[in-house]
Amino acid sequence: MPLNRAGLRLAAILAAFASGYLLPAAQTKLDPIRISDSDAIKAVLEAQQAAWNRGDIRAFLRGYWDSPELTFAGSDGIVRGYDGLAERYRAHYPDKQTMGELQFSGLEMRQLGSDSVLVLGQWHLRRTIGDAGGVFSLVFHRFPAGWRIIHDHTTMTESR
Amino acid sequence: MPLNRAGLRLAAILAAFASGYLLPAAQTKLDPIRISDSDAIKAVLEAQQAAWNRGDIRAFLRGYWDSPELTFAGSDGIVRGYDGLAERYRAHYPDKQTMGELQFSGLEMRQLGSDSVLVLGQWHLRRTIGDAGGVFSLVFHRFPAGWRIIHDHTTMTESR
Repeated sequence: MPLNRAGLRLAAILAAFASGYLLPAAQTKLDPIRISDSDAIKAVLEAQQAAWNRGDIRAFLRGYWDSPELTFAGSDGIVRGYDGLAERYRAHYPDKQTMGELQFSGLEMRQLGSDSVLVLGQWHLRRTIGDAGGVFSLVFHRFPAGWRIIHDHTTMTESR
Repeated sequence: MPLNRAGLRLAAILAAFASGYLLPAAQTKLDPIRISDSDAIKAVLEAQQAAWNRGDIRAFLRGYWDSPELTFAGSDGIVRGYDGLAERYRAHYPDKQTMGELQFSGLEMRQLGSDSVLVLGQWHLRRTIGDAGGVFSLVFHRFPAGWRIIHDHTTMTESR
């Protein structure tokens, strides 16, 4: 049965929608985060916070992807690899006094793919030598061994 | 047929692999970026750079997701929404002199999902009032209308 005029008009509208022409990007929603993924990632961050607060940078680093491809962007530019990041943390935080007490807050997560999640949040260090804090963007990836940070961009926005 | 001893040992090893216990995260590779996606994203960034360099912040902003859920992390903390980000750019870069000439470099892309890509790179502003530059992490998402930045974390690492 050939399409009548109304049918043709509908087909044209559907084709325009399919091509994205009539769909403003603003109206498109991202996938909500899966609760099981969100819980698993929260557990990694809580383990990192606990490790930091007992002065154990080695255990803190376990939240990161153990790979030369791991990247960290910050005030020093881009730091590469798990070993490079370990070195950076040890240089910036040589002892318990500079490490202080770490608190993450305001966590927001966005599912970027079935195995990728973006985590936005704030960090605060309570220290006898002066507090510090700021914002971070973490990209988590799901590996066979679990969720790990594959990219970290951290900015210091407060220090005193 | 019941498993013999060797079969049981093999089953135990396979189970350990399946649980991720014997698979170090370091050996797992991420998916390489698809050339077509990489080209489309590069085109968005080139259009942004061209818009900036003719002093057109409105056109520059078209690279971002036009949504209240857009986020930007930087020295001011977290800025929310397309309108919030537009306001931030206009406040920080009120005229051609403060905008200067923008150059992106060192772009690195990682596929995070079929519709998500992480872009790492450096930015530099050549200005008569003093250069500025730093690093950025962009999360791009593929919408019906094309690839747009849904999250930007930018740090200034050089200024003079």
